[in-house]
Amino acid sequence: MKSKGFEGMICSMASVMGALGDRWGALIVRDLYLGLRRYDDLRESTGASNATLSDRLKSLQQSGLVERRLYQTRPDRYEYVLTPEGQEVGLVLLAMVQVGDKWNVDGLPGPPLRFVDASTGRAVLLNLVDAQTGQPVDPSHLSIEAGPGADDLTRWRLERARAMR
Amino acid sequence: MKSKGFEGMICSMASVMGALGDRWGALIVRDLYLGLRRYDDLRESTGASNATLSDRLKSLQQSGLVERRLYQTRPDRYEYVLTPEGQEVGLVLLAMVQVGDKWNVDGLPGPPLRFVDASTGRAVLLNLVDAQTGQPVDPSHLSIEAGPGADDLTRWRLERARAMR
Repeated sequence: MKSKGFEGMICSMASVMGALGDRWGALIVRDLYLGLRRYDDLRESTGASNATLSDRLKSLQQSGLVERRLYQTRPDRYEYVLTPEGQEVGLVLLAMVQVGDKWNVDGLPGPPLRFVDASTGRAVLLNLVDAQTGQPVDPSHLSIEAGPGADDLTRWRLERARAMR
Repeated sequence: MKSKGFEGMICSMASVMGALGDRWGALIVRDLYLGLRRYDDLRESTGASNATLSDRLKSLQQSGLVERRLYQTRPDRYEYVLTPEGQEVGLVLLAMVQVGDKWNVDGLPGPPLRFVDASTGRAVLLNLVDAQTGQPVDPSHLSIEAGPGADDLTRWRLERARAMR
């Protein structure tokens, strides 16, 4: 996976944004994450033009999120599936949906999608948890600190932020 | 079946992507989330030009993620802080960092940032949890279903995805 733009900037976030590309890219990844695979379905679902859809599918393949797969021969037909990296981006999309649902910009009677645990039927959400124990962590307890891969700019950023408190 | 493009589209995800705008917008929100407030700090941290930074700060105010606040008079000086909605977007940024760190595009010895619970000092991560019990949910158990606000396009998307399994 290659990072594009933001040359030399150590920022995992920018690499994910770069891989998605734009909102069309995000909508395509969303659809593949839901389980759509066919070009025509993606066009119908996203409302993208052929030019936009083809272009974004190519970019998503280049950035390693999407794989094109032959599913039929004579005539050859292809479908699109998420790579393991693409699957991981699902986490980001879930976070977006969770936040957007809370804003409820469309004034809906409820969220358009429900996330449930198939084994229990109960609602699922994204939350901060203790990496060791899996117990929920109060967001107000979250502290962001320099990690082993922090560069000078990252350290400066965190120090400035601390000074502003 | 008509897709309506981004305007009027029932999609919480697109509304969050739209509010962030682009990667510059996301970098600015990241910096404000970390705790930077001053224009000059934001410029230093993001590497954005004055034109880009001013423009994105205005957009972020218009979309309700950022608030400009007078912090000094004679001469008047302003700082930038996240609104409650902007704070919520932090969840999306955390998800991006978590995914991007796993890819480790920069070949670092470790992640640039560490997320810890200030009360225990232990690492924190985003995970799927049962909304009632707070217990972790295996991502492979996640099922996405139509919610009360689902429109025809959303229902069609989920049905098509089910048919492709």
